[in-house]
Amino acid sequence: MQFHLDGYQPGDPEILDPNARTVSTATQGPLPTEVDVLIVGCGPAGLTLAAQLSAFPDIKTCIVDQKPGPLLRGQADGIACRTMEMFEAFGFAERVLKESYWVNETSFWRPNEAVPGTITRSGRIYDTEDGLSEFPHVILNQARVHDFFLDVMRKSKTQLEPHYNRQFHDLTVDRSESAGSHPVTVTLQRSGEAGSETEIVRARYVVGCDGARSKVRKSIGQTLHGDSANHAWGVMDVLAVTDFPDIRLKALIQSAGEGSIVLIPREGGYLVRIYVELDKLSEGQRAGNLDINADYLIAAAQLILKPYSLDVKEVAWWSVYEIGQRLCDRFDDVPQDQAVSLIPRVFIAGDACHTHSPKAGQGMNVSMQDSFNLGWKLASVLKEQSEPSLLATYSTERQAIAKELIEFDREWARMLSASSAGSVDPAKTQDYFVRHGRYTAGTATRYQPSVLTEDGEYQHLALGFPIGMRFHSAPVIRLSDGKPMQLGHTIKADGRWRLFLFAGAEEPFVAGSALQATIAFLSGDPSSPLKKFTKDGNDPDSVIDVRAVLQQPHRDLKVEDVPPLLLPPKGRYGLRDYEKVFCPDYKGGNDVFEMRGIDRAAGCIVVARPDQYVATVLPMDAHQRLSAFFDGFMRSVA
Amino acid sequence: MQFHLDGYQPGDPEILDPNARTVSTATQGPLPTEVDVLIVGCGPAGLTLAAQLSAFPDIKTCIVDQKPGPLLRGQADGIACRTMEMFEAFGFAERVLKESYWVNETSFWRPNEAVPGTITRSGRIYDTEDGLSEFPHVILNQARVHDFFLDVMRKSKTQLEPHYNRQFHDLTVDRSESAGSHPVTVTLQRSGEAGSETEIVRARYVVGCDGARSKVRKSIGQTLHGDSANHAWGVMDVLAVTDFPDIRLKALIQSAGEGSIVLIPREGGYLVRIYVELDKLSEGQRAGNLDINADYLIAAAQLILKPYSLDVKEVAWWSVYEIGQRLCDRFDDVPQDQAVSLIPRVFIAGDACHTHSPKAGQGMNVSMQDSFNLGWKLASVLKEQSEPSLLATYSTERQAIAKELIEFDREWARMLSASSAGSVDPAKTQDYFVRHGRYTAGTATRYQPSVLTEDGEYQHLALGFPIGMRFHSAPVIRLSDGKPMQLGHTIKADGRWRLFLFAGAEEPFVAGSALQATIAFLSGDPSSPLKKFTKDGNDPDSVIDVRAVLQQPHRDLKVEDVPPLLLPPKGRYGLRDYEKVFCPDYKGGNDVFEMRGIDRAAGCIVVARPDQYVATVLPMDAHQRLSAFFDGFMRSVA
Ligand SMILES: Cc1cc2nc3c(=O)[nH]c(=O)nc-3n(C[C@H](O)[C@H](O)[C@H](O)COP(=O)(O)OP(=O)(O)OC[C@H]3O[C@@H](n4cnc5c(N)ncnc54)[C@H](O)[C@@H]3O)c2cc1C
Ligand SMILES: Cc1cc2nc3c(=O)[nH]c(=O)nc-3n(C[C@H](O)[C@H](O)[C@H](O)COP(=O)(O)OP(=O)(O)OC[C@H]3O[C@@H](n4cnc5c(N)ncnc54)[C@H](O)[C@@H]3O)c2cc1C
Repeated sequence: MQFHLDGYQPGDPEILDPNARTVSTATQGPLPTEVDVLIVGCGPAGLTLAAQLSAFPDIKTCIVDQKPGPLLRGQADGIACRTMEMFEAFGFAERVLKESYWVNETSFWRPNEAVPGTITRSGRIYDTEDGLSEFPHVILNQARVHDFFLDVMRKSKTQLEPHYNRQFHDLTVDRSESAGSHPVTVTLQRSGEAGSETEIVRARYVVGCDGARSKVRKSIGQTLHGDSANHAWGVMDVLAVTDFPDIRLKALIQSAGEGSIVLIPREGGYLVRIYVELDKLSEGQRAGNLDINADYLIAAAQLILKPYSLDVKEVAWWSVYEIGQRLCDRFDDVPQDQAVSLIPRVFIAGDACHTHSPKAGQGMNVSMQDSFNLGWKLASVLKEQSEPSLLATYSTERQAIAKELIEFDREWARMLSASSAGSVDPAKTQDYFVRHGRYTAGTATRYQPSVLTEDGEYQHLALGFPIGMRFHSAPVIRLSDGKPMQLGHTIKADGRWRLFLFAGAEEPFVAGSALQATIAFLSGDPSSPLKKFTKDGNDPDSVIDVRAVLQQPHRDLKVEDVPPLLLPPKGRYGLRDYEKVFCPDYKGGNDVFEMRGIDRAAGCIVVARPDQYVATVLPMDAHQRLSAFFDGFMRSVA
Repeated sequence: MQFHLDGYQPGDPEILDPNARTVSTATQGPLPTEVDVLIVGCGPAGLTLAAQLSAFPDIKTCIVDQKPGPLLRGQADGIACRTMEMFEAFGFAERVLKESYWVNETSFWRPNEAVPGTITRSGRIYDTEDGLSEFPHVILNQARVHDFFLDVMRKSKTQLEPHYNRQFHDLTVDRSESAGSHPVTVTLQRSGEAGSETEIVRARYVVGCDGARSKVRKSIGQTLHGDSANHAWGVMDVLAVTDFPDIRLKALIQSAGEGSIVLIPREGGYLVRIYVELDKLSEGQRAGNLDINADYLIAAAQLILKPYSLDVKEVAWWSVYEIGQRLCDRFDDVPQDQAVSLIPRVFIAGDACHTHSPKAGQGMNVSMQDSFNLGWKLASVLKEQSEPSLLATYSTERQAIAKELIEFDREWARMLSASSAGSVDPAKTQDYFVRHGRYTAGTATRYQPSVLTEDGEYQHLALGFPIGMRFHSAPVIRLSDGKPMQLGHTIKADGRWRLFLFAGAEEPFVAGSALQATIAFLSGDPSSPLKKFTKDGNDPDSVIDVRAVLQQPHRDLKVEDVPPLLLPPKGRYGLRDYEKVFCPDYKGGNDVFEMRGIDRAAGCIVVARPDQYVATVLPMDAHQRLSAFFDGFMRSVA
């Protein structure tokens, strides 16, 4: 898709009239007085959470922002492969694929020693390791990411819309015995035309997604630690004419004496983002930092790009983005020493609890993954499917990940600055970049063993599904209709758990096979997690969704033989769901058993969490252990 | 995507509230009194045309339908690969891919001789030959196809919406010398709440897309010839529980004595369409034909499916669809003997000029291809880019295709009925089905030599791009950003011509190369079609879009060397368009030169029409011949 040719226009580029491009729907009227979850902030963290919770009609969610309406331009733009996988779960990956710039390759430029004052290309690499994800790394305006989440919310059963013009002021949590069902009392201030009164909302849970200057964080006494100094970046989205040949490639450019820039091509074929690292400018330039403006950034970029010209025609957005790498100790309101006994009532997510340099492109991605982690947990507890103690895992899991990431970021920054000072071989920077591809792709995330994520006792049965890491999709064929598809795309953002039964080599559907024994257990045994956690009258797959992956070519198997558990009757008519059984895509040369290192003889059970992470790998006959796993945090309906 | 589980709901399945699912926007108020094009009928033919014309703000289009609003259920559902390619040009293929059922394989069932009165599977084949198209054959409610076109119209610069409740009555064409610019006078009758007055519209051109009982056809004195008898099909879209194993596969089922059915799984995972061939029912059953209803069709299907059960829970739509294979001699208002001298003013498209048995799934597909053929021609003439004589090619090209298709359909019907009578081996039917896969995929269409489609003098230079057939896409890598993509997807439904310069093996961008000579000709020669047909001040690629495909791996080429013609300045800022140059996808193992049989030594020029058909293949140095081709129908701007 090509757009923005005659100037940047916010909103949906498929709508050709600029005035019709932006939808700005909102909930009018006062805030509700009582809600299950109050989300503060309509950034990526808040909207991911709101989109997740909007899927559940029995949960009352409210999301507010101090701004008068949705974001229209600027801020982050990098979308990691892992984030695309999550977008697929929310049902809009294909829209992002269509609209975004795809980062296929990255080029590196360094001072040209032969011609002082100019730069020369030092290397070019593929951005993403082959097979790392079924999705590319892409670049798209953060505002469009917001739009897609707002669209999910609007289309959901709850038709959730934000309340804008609402500033969070403070909150109190009543931890007394006499506290009712909604122990958090929140004070907000209305702004805008509709008046400026104070509103009080009582909530079961509050999530602060209110960015780096979070007041929710302050209200629970958390602080960001880390870098004492902020790093300053000048950033601009421009439409420009240039003879710089890599203007449509992500490029890391280091000049000899004028500093460095990161160039990121953008959606629509014409727009480009340029980051100018302000700390790295020469002495004389730095003095001017105080009154930096777009012209200043353009002049700096022009100097660094020499001998190439840069003729900027329009600045769509620009900012000086000053941020340090900082982190909170906890992402909830429970004091460290009461972590076991108290249930968290207030959470913080995204920039509210960790901040990143834009260099690794993590801010937006990690923020969304935070609330993807939190969303299903909140839903599960509110629906009384899980014990409230589950909520403690949010801070534990996500704080560790944020910490790791900041350490990575710091190393990266050190590397780059040493490199631009000339003390590191640019080839080394490039090498480091390659090695850390998995980090930046977001696929390196690994949750530590916990009630939700088992240790690796049976990891050898499925080496390609590392426990604690995201379920790595692979191509398969659906048995009932022969459709080639991605196995991972069966994991939607619907709060459900998934059991993938990878069958051993034997005939799968004959009496006495290991698969049949597991199916018999799941279907009929009183200790089956399906029996224990699914309410009567609900679809059999509404809490735990069982899928089988068989080794035989799909034409060698008979749909007639598929047991009822894998053809479950659903809905008011009891219609059969034919989308539970898969086979390797032998014709396409993709064997999921091979690709994901499944033990072909024994098979195994892979348990995937609602947020697409692998919870455990178990032997096909470890029925009681499977039960015990779910017993660790779920609530029996009996 | 799964939907319709608790009952069929029309509209966008991503919107979970059934009441919010259907958009029914329309233009209110009276019809305009004067338009460039009046389209009668909002079926697939009319909407394809309206969507195409809506792209041009300088063309005044009006589309009417006698119905009060958009279609919500029923009618056709098969979408051929070729149609998907066209949807890609209109920008919504990815939405159809997501929402539709994919026909991957087809199964065949015949009487089970071992157990009389029952059926047994006789075969299973892949639906579409490998490599036939980059798109699968899919199934989706015709109503959704309408929705997507309506969406294209709504989002276009012209924001075109239909006028509903308007019945076409009659028209007259003033062919006198004194006829003004709008020689067609159309009488329409308004219905519905807003009144029932008669409205008169004067148009430059009128297109009757008003279905099998077309009044526009009648008004120009055309009639459908062909089968004297109609074939009757009972058709129903149902939600059912069954133990028939191939319920999620397209299945052709012949019983011994109870007739035959065609079963077509539908979008959303639960819905299924069943066609009952009424002519083929047993004597006793046929007697009941007169008062056929859904219960009757269900009973017939139940008999045919034995020993399997079919428990229908909901009939979403049903109909008795009676149609013969018929065809008009001409698709416009010009008498055969004046075909050379007169300019057509009235056209008919779709079912208005040819009808098909639903068996081959052609009705909707061919109707859309009709108006895709007509749309750009009308636009080009109205924009004064082409001579009005171009319009004569519509009837010539499309009538021949419709004729071929009806012959194919007839043979197919003969085959099936002979087969169900037991006189043809079912294996033969299956074999025929395979051979004719290209027909049903819509990729067999080949326009005969004409002013728009040259003879095959240089066909040997690109054997995989047969002249007169659709430009067969292939994977490539875009030079500027290394993006893997489909070359054919550069052809959008924007009315532009495309020149694909497939370079020979030599270095492409050095002085003296054949490619450079062609670029020099196109850029600077007074006889260059780019010079002759592009108005000053318009983008250089606004009429003819030049793209180059090179043989070198993309990293061996330098963007620095790309000549200005292939980095054209566009828009009000003169921004460079970086999306014109492509290389083979060697990494992915896809070499477009190999795949499309391009002469590697010599290279060639492939000219693609705005409707994605190959107009000609020429040697790289055939500059004057290239000019002459465009001179054959285009108007110089000088
Ligand atoms: C001006 C700016 C420029 C940036 N530029 C870049 C960049 O160039 N590259 C990059 O990678 N990242 C950039 N970022 C960071 C990136 O946008 C964040 O990492 C990402 O948005 C984090 O998402 P979040 O949801 O946690 O917080 P945010 O996106 O910051 O969202 C917080 C939301 O909370 C609202 N809010 C704040 N306080 C209150 C309150 N008291 N009451 C109600 N609402 C409140 C805010 O209005 C905002 O909508 C930028 C951020 C900002 C603010
Ligand atoms: C009831 C029905 C059932 C069908 N079932 C099947 C099926 O099961 N399988 C299959 O493959 N195909 C089926 N078809 C055929 C398939 O829908 C057509 O081949 C396809 O729609 C052709 O598209 P079209 O645009 O040419 O005409 P149509 O889709 O017929 O559209 C014609 C439009 O013109 C409007 N119109 C007609 N006369 C006037 C007038 N005088 N003034 C204003 N508007 C007018 C109509 O309201 C209609 O919207 C069916 C068609 C119908 C009508």
